[in-house]
Amino acid sequence: MAAPSSLENLVESLRCLPGVGPKSAQRMAYHLLQRDRAGAQRLSDALRHALQALRHCQRCNTFSETEICERCASSKRDPSLLCVVETTVDMNMMEQTQAYSGLYYVLMGRMSPLDGIGPRELHLDRLLARISDGAVREVILATNFTNEGEVTAHTLGEMLKSRGLKISRIARGVPVGGELEYVDSGTLAQAMRERKTI
Amino acid sequence: MAAPSSLENLVESLRCLPGVGPKSAQRMAYHLLQRDRAGAQRLSDALRHALQALRHCQRCNTFSETEICERCASSKRDPSLLCVVETTVDMNMMEQTQAYSGLYYVLMGRMSPLDGIGPRELHLDRLLARISDGAVREVILATNFTNEGEVTAHTLGEMLKSRGLKISRIARGVPVGGELEYVDSGTLAQAMRERKTI
Repeated sequence: MAAPSSLENLVESLRCLPGVGPKSAQRMAYHLLQRDRAGAQRLSDALRHALQALRHCQRCNTFSETEICERCASSKRDPSLLCVVETTVDMNMMEQTQAYSGLYYVLMGRMSPLDGIGPRELHLDRLLARISDGAVREVILATNFTNEGEVTAHTLGEMLKSRGLKISRIARGVPVGGELEYVDSGTLAQAMRERKTI
Repeated sequence: MAAPSSLENLVESLRCLPGVGPKSAQRMAYHLLQRDRAGAQRLSDALRHALQALRHCQRCNTFSETEICERCASSKRDPSLLCVVETTVDMNMMEQTQAYSGLYYVLMGRMSPLDGIGPRELHLDRLLARISDGAVREVILATNFTNEGEVTAHTLGEMLKSRGLKISRIARGVPVGGELEYVDSGTLAQAMRERKTI
């Protein structure tokens, strides 16, 4: 005998969440229905509202409720610096460091030739349009140091270097607080190669 | 500079899901908005619909779109057997075995004195009312073999044994396919104590 269809439907719908398989979806559905109906209602409303309200900032491509996001519209940021990150989460991480006061461009992804995600799928033309605003002087590539992030940075570097802009990549090395004993050898080798004179 | 409020609101709302902390909630929100807006819309609708449609079956306490669920209303089940389980998931697991054709009662929880969940919070009075229908002859306690499940089974056993019904507990022992080498000693000791003459 099957479960009631609206329950099945809820379990199935929860699987659109990343990392949620059939077992967790079932657990989540029962939890919401049994223990947190108010939370479920809030979640339903929040999803609907976010879908309606959020679009991409025309300048940095992050999620925004306005055409140009608050950060891009701010006069307190340095418009000559543009930091390219893969995701909005990465942008938030960078902001939390308080070490950067320029603007951002969020790729909303990374190149992944194996998955068929190339320059076109990443809409790199939008980034090219963005850097041609006359204000940007330096593009800082802050994609991840994964294979895909590195490919993305390399491709962007090739595309941008003919444009007369300074192109930089955030530094690689032993993490702050990191002990050499526990750092992987790739990182350590890189840290050695990129050693700085003090 | 803060994230747009409908985004913050969505991230916060996702945290009502069990096992979802701030980091995963953020990852889920961005995934939905960036990669699966259709899925997000379906989830919003499924939540709303499930909240409206699902209530508890008046007889077995499971989720149902009707006052009495399909299983309890079925004439193909043996009404003299009542299997008491903690959750709807447990009931589904038991159904999948195809080893049981009686009816169920779903506690929707377990006793947990440390969390203040006693007989009253579990609404055991409803179970007592359920078994007094004149048809039930045997109550099978199929709560988990955890501390809390055992406390629940013990309490139910004490409550029910004066009612002139047969009370049973599902068997404990070495799992099918289990190797003694890898079974914990508590299970093994129990399997030894409850050994059966063949």
